[in-house]
Amino acid sequence: MTTFSTRLQAVRGSAIRDLLTLTARPDVLSLAGGLPAADLMPRERIAAAAAQALLDPANAQYSATTGTAHLRAVLAAHESERCARPIAPDQVVVTTGSQQALDLLARALLDPGDPVVVEDPAYVGALQVFQAAGAELHPVPLDGEGMRVDVLAERLAAGLRPRLVHTVSSFHNPRGVTLVQHRRRELAALADRYGFLVVEDDPYGLLAFDGTPPLPVAAHGEQVVRLGSASKVLAPALRVGWLSGPPAVCAAVERLKQLTDLCTSSLTQAITAELLSDTTWFDGHLRHVRAVTAERADAFTAAVAELLPGVECSTPTGGMFCWLTFPAGTDTSALLSRALEAGVGFVPGSAFAVAGPRTADARCCYASYPPDVIREAVRRLASVVSIVAT
Amino acid sequence: MTTFSTRLQAVRGSAIRDLLTLTARPDVLSLAGGLPAADLMPRERIAAAAAQALLDPANAQYSATTGTAHLRAVLAAHESERCARPIAPDQVVVTTGSQQALDLLARALLDPGDPVVVEDPAYVGALQVFQAAGAELHPVPLDGEGMRVDVLAERLAAGLRPRLVHTVSSFHNPRGVTLVQHRRRELAALADRYGFLVVEDDPYGLLAFDGTPPLPVAAHGEQVVRLGSASKVLAPALRVGWLSGPPAVCAAVERLKQLTDLCTSSLTQAITAELLSDTTWFDGHLRHVRAVTAERADAFTAAVAELLPGVECSTPTGGMFCWLTFPAGTDTSALLSRALEAGVGFVPGSAFAVAGPRTADARCCYASYPPDVIREAVRRLASVVSIVAT
Repeated sequence: MTTFSTRLQAVRGSAIRDLLTLTARPDVLSLAGGLPAADLMPRERIAAAAAQALLDPANAQYSATTGTAHLRAVLAAHESERCARPIAPDQVVVTTGSQQALDLLARALLDPGDPVVVEDPAYVGALQVFQAAGAELHPVPLDGEGMRVDVLAERLAAGLRPRLVHTVSSFHNPRGVTLVQHRRRELAALADRYGFLVVEDDPYGLLAFDGTPPLPVAAHGEQVVRLGSASKVLAPALRVGWLSGPPAVCAAVERLKQLTDLCTSSLTQAITAELLSDTTWFDGHLRHVRAVTAERADAFTAAVAELLPGVECSTPTGGMFCWLTFPAGTDTSALLSRALEAGVGFVPGSAFAVAGPRTADARCCYASYPPDVIREAVRRLASVVSIVAT
Repeated sequence: MTTFSTRLQAVRGSAIRDLLTLTARPDVLSLAGGLPAADLMPRERIAAAAAQALLDPANAQYSATTGTAHLRAVLAAHESERCARPIAPDQVVVTTGSQQALDLLARALLDPGDPVVVEDPAYVGALQVFQAAGAELHPVPLDGEGMRVDVLAERLAAGLRPRLVHTVSSFHNPRGVTLVQHRRRELAALADRYGFLVVEDDPYGLLAFDGTPPLPVAAHGEQVVRLGSASKVLAPALRVGWLSGPPAVCAAVERLKQLTDLCTSSLTQAITAELLSDTTWFDGHLRHVRAVTAERADAFTAAVAELLPGVECSTPTGGMFCWLTFPAGTDTSALLSRALEAGVGFVPGSAFAVAGPRTADARCCYASYPPDVIREAVRRLASVVSIVAT
C-alpha cells in the first residue's frame, strides 16, 4: 500500500479540473474553462518559427536552466518597457509556463507554516502551490478596484508578517477586476516597509482592451517578482512563462528549476523569442486578439444585462473573465447541475473561495466563442435561472 | 534581505553545472557534459512533425495534465513491449522531461526524514531531488554488474525501510554499468517483500549497442515506477519524459503536476507521438544512433587503452558514459585544472560521490564527438596525466 506525502495531502483538489471533464461534452457550451481562444493562436506563424529554429542544432539541445540568452534579452527588454525602468537579462528566468514560476518561488522561499497573503476569491493554481508548500494562507478581499490594500495594511499594522503577497493585478482571475494605480503604489510601499515580496502574477496584462496594459506594481518598487506568460498572447502549448525580480530570487529559482525540469524547451523558447521580438507582427497580433476578445466580452455583458436581470456582472476591461453575482440565496453549485442539463457550463464561486463561501457567485470565461455563441450560452443559463427562481 | 527555504538550502550545488561553464570555452573539447550528440537529432523530421501538428488547434492549446491521449497510448504500447507485460495508458503520465517525473515522485511520496536508497556514485539530478524533498540518503555501492543488490538486501535485513530505491538500471550515469538480470529480479522481489518502490530511471536503455535494450526491472515486479525520456533518442528540446507505474502513484503525480506546470507542451507531445509511432522510421533512426555512438565509444576506449596506461576504463555496452579510475593517489579535481589548460574537460568522480570520496575517478561522455576528435581529447588528457605522474 503506497502512502503519500503530507504536502500532497495538503493540496486541495481542483473542482475546476473535475468540472472541465463535464463541460467537455460536445453538447455543452463551456464558459467554465480558462482556455484562450484557439482561433486566435497564430499557428502558421509558430510553425514557420519552428522550422526556422530547427535549422540551428542548439534549438534541439538542452538550454541553460535560466533560459536561452536570446529569449532572456527579449524578455528583459519587454519587462523594461512594461515597468518603465531598466530590467537586466539576469533579472529574468524563463519557466515552463508561469505556473512553474509560482511553484518554484514558493518552494524557494517558503517553509511550512510561513504566512502568505492571497486574494479572496483567488486563482486556484496559486492556492494549490501555497498549500503544497505548507504555507498558512491569509485571505484579503477584493472589490471593484482589486485587492483591498487598506485591509492588508491594517493586518500588517496588527502584526501579520507574510513572506509573500500574491496578486493577479490586472484583469483578475476569477474576479475580472484590476488593481487601481494608487493601490499598486501603496502595495509596493508596504512591501518595502514590512519586508515581504509581492508576487505580481500577470498573464493577462497585455490583453487590455484599450491597448494600454496597466503599469505594473513592479514599476512602483523593487520588492516585486513579476510573472509573465506567452500562453494568453501566443499559445499555451509553448509552455513558456517567465519571472523577473531581484537577482537573489532569480538565482534561488534557477537552483530549484535545475532539479525540477533541467530547462524549458529550447525550441519553444526560440519560437517565443522570434514572435515577441518581431514587434511589428506582435503588435498587430495583439491588436487583433484584443479587438476580438473585447467584442466577445461586450456580447457577454450585453446578454447578461438583457437575459439575466438581477444578476450583477463585473465590467471587463481586459483579460478573459467575468464574475457574476446572483441574487442572495442562490446556490451556484446547485445551479450548475441544471445549467449542464441545459447545455452550458460555468465555475461556481465556491471553487475560488478562501474565507467566504461565495455560493451566489460564478466565474464565466467569455474568450472562447464568437458573439452569437456567447449569447446562446447566456440564453441557456437564463433558462435555468428562471426555473430556479420560480 | 530575502531568506530562503530550508529545502532550498538542503540542495547541494551541482559541481557539474559550474564545470559546464568552463568547458563551454571554444578551445576546450568537453567530455564533461551529458549532452546527446547534436548531429544525431532528427531536426528535419521534428520540423515536419511540428508543421503537421500545428494544423490541429488542439496542439496549440493546453493539454490534459497527464498528457495527450495519443501520446499516452503510444507510450503505453512502447512500455508494454519493453516490459513484456501489458501496461495501460492510465499507468502512464507524460512529464516535462524525466527529471520532472523524478521530482514529482519525490514530492508525492516523501516526507522530510524519509529514507531513500541511492546508488554510489549517483546521478546528481536524483541526489538534488531527494535533498530538496528532505530525504535521508542511504548509498549502496555499484560494481561492474550494477547496484550491489546483495548489500541492499543486507541493509534491509538489518532493518532499513526505505520509501524508494533509485537506480539508473541500464548504462549507468555516471558509472557506465548495467544491472544484470538476476539482480533486477532480486531487486523487484525485495520491493515486494519490504514494501518500497523501485524508481527505475531509464533514459539510456534504448541506446543498447547490440540493439537489445535490457529487460527492465519493471518486467520482474509491479512495485516499480519506470522513468523514460525522449531526450536521448530524439531531442532534449522536446522536454518530453514519462513515468509508468501503479495507478495510485500516477494519480498522485498528476495532482502535483497540475500545480507544477499544468501540463507538458501539446506541441512537443504531438511531435513525440508522431516520431515514436512511426516505428519503421524510429527503428531505423535508433539503429543509426546506436551505431554512431558505439563507434565513438570504441574510439574512446581504444584511445584510453593506448594513451592512458594504468587507467581503468569501464566497458561501454550502451548509453553515453565511461568511468575512468586513475592510479591510487590521483586527485582528478586537481587533474581537471591541468586538463582544461590543455583543452579538454571531464567531470571528477567526487561530483557523483555520496559516501566515498571518488577522488581518483572521472566521468567521460564519449557521445558528443566523432572518433578523431574523441582521440584528440584523450591525447590532451594523456598529456597532462604524464605531467602529473612525473
